Amino acid sequence: MYRSHNNGSLRASDTNTEVTLSGWVQKSRDKGFMIWVDLRDRYGITQLIFDEERTPKNIMEQARTLGREFVIQVKGTVIERASKNPNIPTGDIEILVSELTVLNEALTPPFTIEDETDGGEDLRMKYRYLDIRRNPVKDSLIFRHRVAMEVRKYLSNEDFIEVETPYLIKSTPEGARDFVVPSRMNEGQFYALPQSPQTFKQLLMVGGMDKYFQIVKCFRDEDLRADRQPEFTQIDCEMAFVEQEDILNIFEGLTRHLLKEINGVTVEKFPRMLYDDAMRLYGNDKPDIRFGMEFGELNDVAQHKDFKVFNSAELVVGIAVPGGNSYTRKEIDKLIDWVKRPQVGALGMVYARYNDDGSYKSSVDKFYDQEDLAKWADVTGAKPGDLICVLSGDTNKVRAQLSALRMELAERLGLRDPKVFAPLWVIDFPLLELDEETGHYHAMHHPFTSPKPGQIELLATDPGAVKANAYDLVLNGNEIGGGSIRIHDKQTQALMFDYLGFTPEEAKAQFGFLMDAFQYGAPPHGGLAFGLDRLVAILGGQETIRDFIAFPKNNSGRDVMIDAPAAIDEEQLKELHLKVHA
Amino acid sequence: MYRSHNNGSLRASDTNTEVTLSGWVQKSRDKGFMIWVDLRDRYGITQLIFDEERTPKNIMEQARTLGREFVIQVKGTVIERASKNPNIPTGDIEILVSELTVLNEALTPPFTIEDETDGGEDLRMKYRYLDIRRNPVKDSLIFRHRVAMEVRKYLSNEDFIEVETPYLIKSTPEGARDFVVPSRMNEGQFYALPQSPQTFKQLLMVGGMDKYFQIVKCFRDEDLRADRQPEFTQIDCEMAFVEQEDILNIFEGLTRHLLKEINGVTVEKFPRMLYDDAMRLYGNDKPDIRFGMEFGELNDVAQHKDFKVFNSAELVVGIAVPGGNSYTRKEIDKLIDWVKRPQVGALGMVYARYNDDGSYKSSVDKFYDQEDLAKWADVTGAKPGDLICVLSGDTNKVRAQLSALRMELAERLGLRDPKVFAPLWVIDFPLLELDEETGHYHAMHHPFTSPKPGQIELLATDPGAVKANAYDLVLNGNEIGGGSIRIHDKQTQALMFDYLGFTPEEAKAQFGFLMDAFQYGAPPHGGLAFGLDRLVAILGGQETIRDFIAFPKNNSGRDVMIDAPAAIDEEQLKELHLKVHA
Repeated sequence: MYRSHNNGSLRASDTNTEVTLSGWVQKSRDKGFMIWVDLRDRYGITQLIFDEERTPKNIMEQARTLGREFVIQVKGTVIERASKNPNIPTGDIEILVSELTVLNEALTPPFTIEDETDGGEDLRMKYRYLDIRRNPVKDSLIFRHRVAMEVRKYLSNEDFIEVETPYLIKSTPEGARDFVVPSRMNEGQFYALPQSPQTFKQLLMVGGMDKYFQIVKCFRDEDLRADRQPEFTQIDCEMAFVEQEDILNIFEGLTRHLLKEINGVTVEKFPRMLYDDAMRLYGNDKPDIRFGMEFGELNDVAQHKDFKVFNSAELVVGIAVPGGNSYTRKEIDKLIDWVKRPQVGALGMVYARYNDDGSYKSSVDKFYDQEDLAKWADVTGAKPGDLICVLSGDTNKVRAQLSALRMELAERLGLRDPKVFAPLWVIDFPLLELDEETGHYHAMHHPFTSPKPGQIELLATDPGAVKANAYDLVLNGNEIGGGSIRIHDKQTQALMFDYLGFTPEEAKAQFGFLMDAFQYGAPPHGGLAFGLDRLVAILGGQETIRDFIAFPKNNSGRDVMIDAPAAIDEEQLKELHLKVHA
Repeated sequence: MYRSHNNGSLRASDTNTEVTLSGWVQKSRDKGFMIWVDLRDRYGITQLIFDEERTPKNIMEQARTLGREFVIQVKGTVIERASKNPNIPTGDIEILVSELTVLNEALTPPFTIEDETDGGEDLRMKYRYLDIRRNPVKDSLIFRHRVAMEVRKYLSNEDFIEVETPYLIKSTPEGARDFVVPSRMNEGQFYALPQSPQTFKQLLMVGGMDKYFQIVKCFRDEDLRADRQPEFTQIDCEMAFVEQEDILNIFEGLTRHLLKEINGVTVEKFPRMLYDDAMRLYGNDKPDIRFGMEFGELNDVAQHKDFKVFNSAELVVGIAVPGGNSYTRKEIDKLIDWVKRPQVGALGMVYARYNDDGSYKSSVDKFYDQEDLAKWADVTGAKPGDLICVLSGDTNKVRAQLSALRMELAERLGLRDPKVFAPLWVIDFPLLELDEETGHYHAMHHPFTSPKPGQIELLATDPGAVKANAYDLVLNGNEIGGGSIRIHDKQTQALMFDYLGFTPEEAKAQFGFLMDAFQYGAPPHGGLAFGLDRLVAILGGQETIRDFIAFPKNNSGRDVMIDAPAAIDEEQLKELHLKVHA
């Protein structure tokens, strides 16, 4: 038996107990006549004491040889500490060691195993097994486990059944790029790894499973941006005989359950916002509503003066920055530089100070008088002491730019408190999205999404106006998940594929099984998927998902710890009927 | 709202309630003045009634058009049934329908959606979404969910953390063939799909996670035998600071928990059997101990007579078949034919009848007298009325043959009751296994398994004799899972790789990260993995795993429903730097 207790469990009430402990040497302090060692495991730290008067000499000597991260086992007696440490639960006691065994030695770790480490990102990834010993990573993984357990508990209680869908499926041209898996037994053929279990969960609804969920790995072979992983985890759900309202209620319930159980936060009924309103008021389909700073559209009050920049713009839109009038001229100039950065891309920014005495001072005083500026304040909701920032240009672009500015300012103003949770349903997404490069429309959610009743005819005349029964859950400015009511009849699905540019042959080759299934009694159904990695990070109050993934890949899709991907044997390639070419 | 209740929930106490129900038409009976429809969903069946006197004429007519598997919605009133059906929970009531909506029509299904279907395996797989509507499949999937939930509940309560390990890892030559995934971003390089998360769970132990589990998909590109799937699910576990005893206790606890919660069966402490004893007594490392019929080795009492077949055999071994003396000569001849089948491969079978009067009659009376045969009865534990069956030959072969005969006879005798659960730990497996074709030893469990303390020196002199801290859990003659205490120091691991024929360069290229990790303070650790598909099937009292997998593949590794694997675009291949060649 390696241990009688773990290193987080002993208390003053255990004094005089004989215990066996195992763990890692966190650190040791040698005062000559006494040596203290902090022994660490997943559960905590227990202080060991070796003392010239009470510890056998050979053990005293052995204790001197212990290095950081050595794995040791000790036997000893729990004694009360002379100087207690109120910062750790075991701080009232220490162990007077009578036996010491080194279970494994350790080289000096390449970075410090402390909450704040001196290790850079690359080094930590290469030695991820050491990084995981650090509390921030270890606690994140435990936190993730707790969230996943609560998800399963809630959904099981709601009669959902977790069904495992296959990982070796078929490649489809829709959506992102698939990872493929060559088949040895079927020459020249490939499986694909799922981007999501979308068609399978719909087939489960056709199969009468009624309420399905799965916490499942999904795969996308995309060029990776920061904080994107080629493999990621979804909470995937589908329900039969439901309308949008039923789905929103269940998953609002799930989210509320998590906020309560995991964060101890009670949230009222989630607000709902039309997609169009989200774009109009926040320039964004995932608005952070922890704070206001809603957009005010200024075309009516700012155009048709002599200011050409505004007159020629499709949209003139501003926000009021609370207390922003305190910014110096220099600070405002920096803000103007900030919106001009290539990542934001605005050509310039107009501003108006709203003075405490009720007067205004703007960067365009030549064109706008006090009365004009009062209208700006009215539309943007500015108060005395605020700064009104105004951008203009193409509607889509300027909304994105002002949204970026809004988030940046909120960050600077400390309005994005990770301990505050502001969930929001964004509903009535457009069915289709215009690809500005090709001029073609493609499915905004996916090709199985149902248009709103009676709107399918609009496809022919005004495709961009067709709304879908599609919805996203947004939490603190992050899209946590989304879903839709699906098409469940073969005709509509065929129409959609046709509209999206599939020939009937292509549609049949790719999705024939689904359209076949729709002929055998498909129920109305819909569902949604949450991104678990992101959800856990947000609940954990973190910006990045990486600490919540045990073994993440870097931005080139590599696992630098195991050095994957890697070349494979010629023999293996031959069996797969493949040749690598440059 | 599509429904106010599901089809399994209404009772006599709901009489006179107005309800809305949705579901599939299971069947309808038209008696002219009355029509009854069985409405089905996941939860049960509710009878609908349409009645000339009480139902509007148009609805009556509409009801006549309903075909099997139509998806409908009805509104109506719960009424008491004239003739109650005690076989279903809703059998006291029926719904007098006032509104009927056809939500989706259905073609006639290619096989009947009944517990006993007329559909063959191939048809059922092609239309798996219809097969899932059948109770045996639907209930199996729900059963699987319940088992998985209980596994998670138990392990979480025992402080295990579920950690997701990556699916895109590195190919290793050890073990079965890997499925590989070409990398687009890393030309000529491949990921591999995990055969198990073995190295990652060991790294989690090095990382101090202490108790890890995961219910996880694993992949093996093997030629498929019946009831094998290229992707399968494991309950994968690992613990740090443990000895074999700790692991057996935890997972015996898990198994006992499942038997209790899922099957309502209480099982005493699991017996443990040495691997060598299992082979000696049952000819098999996964003995079914629901019944006796232990092997009796007869070399001492049957050799050195004049019977050359036995004299030349390495092993002479028999079993007593309870009540087998009642077999006719013809039946025994058939048994002899049975053991000669190529699947069993025995050359012949000797038998001795143990008559009720205490006398014996054997097929080798020329060589063995009553006193000799009494010794056979003694060694095999035969009683009057039994039949003693004896095989002889090479130890390994004859054990396998007699084991097959033992299982066959037990099956015929009805001794393999799926409602009886007889778990068993088989322990002290050999570290290495001789490949009879190549004459080389390879790791019986895997190359990370630790030899028993003090036995590593035997590798040089008597490798086959080295035992490992390796164990299997056997349930009713099936290996449910297995595991081992792992090597946790770099030197021993290097020695093992060397012994298994890896050059130091190969070992470093493949497992360098693991051996590196062992240098930074690896704790003693060990673990095990259960096969979930098999475990669920056995708990469910079934022989085959297929009904417990939502979308299984056929024996060629194909998903015949979605028709995967399939060819991919030239464009896709090009991006992956690959060419297919014959």
